[in-house]
Amino acid sequence: MEMAVVTLSGGLDSATLLFWSAKRYDVSALTFDYGSKHNEKEQIAAKELARLAGVRHILIKLPFINDLFKSNLLQSGGTIPEGHYEDASMQSTVVPFRNGIMLSIAVGLAESIGARTVLYAAHAGDHAIYPDCRPDFLNAMSGAAQAGTYINVQIQDPFIGMHKKDVVLLGSKLSVPFGVTYSCYKGGELHCGKCGTCVERREAFQLAGIPDPTRYEIVLLS
Amino acid sequence: MEMAVVTLSGGLDSATLLFWSAKRYDVSALTFDYGSKHNEKEQIAAKELARLAGVRHILIKLPFINDLFKSNLLQSGGTIPEGHYEDASMQSTVVPFRNGIMLSIAVGLAESIGARTVLYAAHAGDHAIYPDCRPDFLNAMSGAAQAGTYINVQIQDPFIGMHKKDVVLLGSKLSVPFGVTYSCYKGGELHCGKCGTCVERREAFQLAGIPDPTRYEIVLLS
Repeated sequence: MEMAVVTLSGGLDSATLLFWSAKRYDVSALTFDYGSKHNEKEQIAAKELARLAGVRHILIKLPFINDLFKSNLLQSGGTIPEGHYEDASMQSTVVPFRNGIMLSIAVGLAESIGARTVLYAAHAGDHAIYPDCRPDFLNAMSGAAQAGTYINVQIQDPFIGMHKKDVVLLGSKLSVPFGVTYSCYKGGELHCGKCGTCVERREAFQLAGIPDPTRYEIVLLS
Repeated sequence: MEMAVVTLSGGLDSATLLFWSAKRYDVSALTFDYGSKHNEKEQIAAKELARLAGVRHILIKLPFINDLFKSNLLQSGGTIPEGHYEDASMQSTVVPFRNGIMLSIAVGLAESIGARTVLYAAHAGDHAIYPDCRPDFLNAMSGAAQAGTYINVQIQDPFIGMHKKDVVLLGSKLSVPFGVTYSCYKGGELHCGKCGTCVERREAFQLAGIPDPTRYEIVLLS
C-alpha cells in the first residue's frame, strides 16, 4: 500500500479524512501542538483517533507560534469570540499562515519517509474565513511541494468541494467515532457550544440528520 | 520604512541579502536552528551579522527536523561528503523541503508583525542540487503566501538570477563583513575547505577577484 501523511487536528473533518485515508494508504497521522487554547484536548483526541484507525501517530511541537505569532486562538492571545464562524470577529482566531506551516512540515516529513501524498481536510465551509483553506492557496502550496521535493510530493484535499454536513455524512458511513473528536476553540472539558467552531459543528450534524454525540456546555433545544 | 522579514542562515548569501535589505526595509532577521551539524556556528554568525546590520534578530528552534527527517546535513545523519557542490553525493545533504518550512514560518511571522515582504537569498548556483531553491518552487511558494495571508505577503528572491560570485561582488560593494559569515557543512571551528559549500565559497571569491577572508583548515595554493 502506498504511504501518505495525513494532517490530523483531532476535529471531525480530519478524523473523517483519517478513516477515509486509512482504507487507501499506509497512513502516518501528523498532529501539531502550536500553543492553541484547545491543543491539549485536540491532542488527546488525535492520539485516540489514530489508535482507533490503526495508524502510526506523530506529534510535532511548534512552541514558536504561541511565542511569536498573534491570534486569539493561541494561549498568548485574547478571548475566543462567540457566534457564527463566518462573522468578522472570528478572524481574530486565525493563526497567520498556520496551514502553510503545517503543510510544509508534512511535505518534508513525507519526503523523508518516502510518501508522495499529503492529505489535508480543508472543506468548502472553511474558505469564507481562512485564506489558508482556499483552493488558490492549496493549489499553489501543492505546486510548491511538487517543485520543491525530489519525489514530487502532492498535497491532496479530497473534501475541498464538500460542506461540513457532507463530511459528517461521509464520516458516519465510515463509522468515524465522532464522540472522540474535539473542536471547541475554548479548550474546555466539554464543548462550549457557542464559539464559531462549535456552532458550525452543531449545524453540520443537524443538517446531516445525524445524531450529535458531542457533550456541550449549553443546553440545546432541538 | 516598510517592514520585511529576511531569512538569515549566517552564510555569505543571506548576509549580503541582509545588508542589501537593511537599506530598503525595516528588517527582522530570522534564523532557524533545525539541528544541522553547522547550526551552532551559523547562529553565532547570524546573531553577529544582525547586530552589525543594526536589525532585530529572531531565532526559531525546529528540533523535530533533526528528530524525524533524513539528511546527512543533520546531527542525526551520516558523514558530510567532500567534493564539488553539484555532485550527486551532495544530495545526501538536502533536508527535505527545508526551505518550504522556513519560508512558511517566515510568512506567518511576517503577517503577525504586519510585514508584507519576506526576502530569501536563493541564487542561480543553488538550483542544480536543491529543488527547493528553484524558481518554480519559489514562485509557487510566493503564490501560496499571497493567497494564504490577509495582507498578501510576498516572497522575494532578488538574487535568484545571480551566480555566487555576483553575490560576493555585491556584498563587497555593501561592505558585508564576510569574515563573520559561516558556511561549512561540517560545523568545525575553521571552514573545512573541502565540502561542497566550502568549495563553492572558495570559487566564488576567486571568480569575483575579491580577497577571501575565510580561515580554511586546508592550505590553499593560489
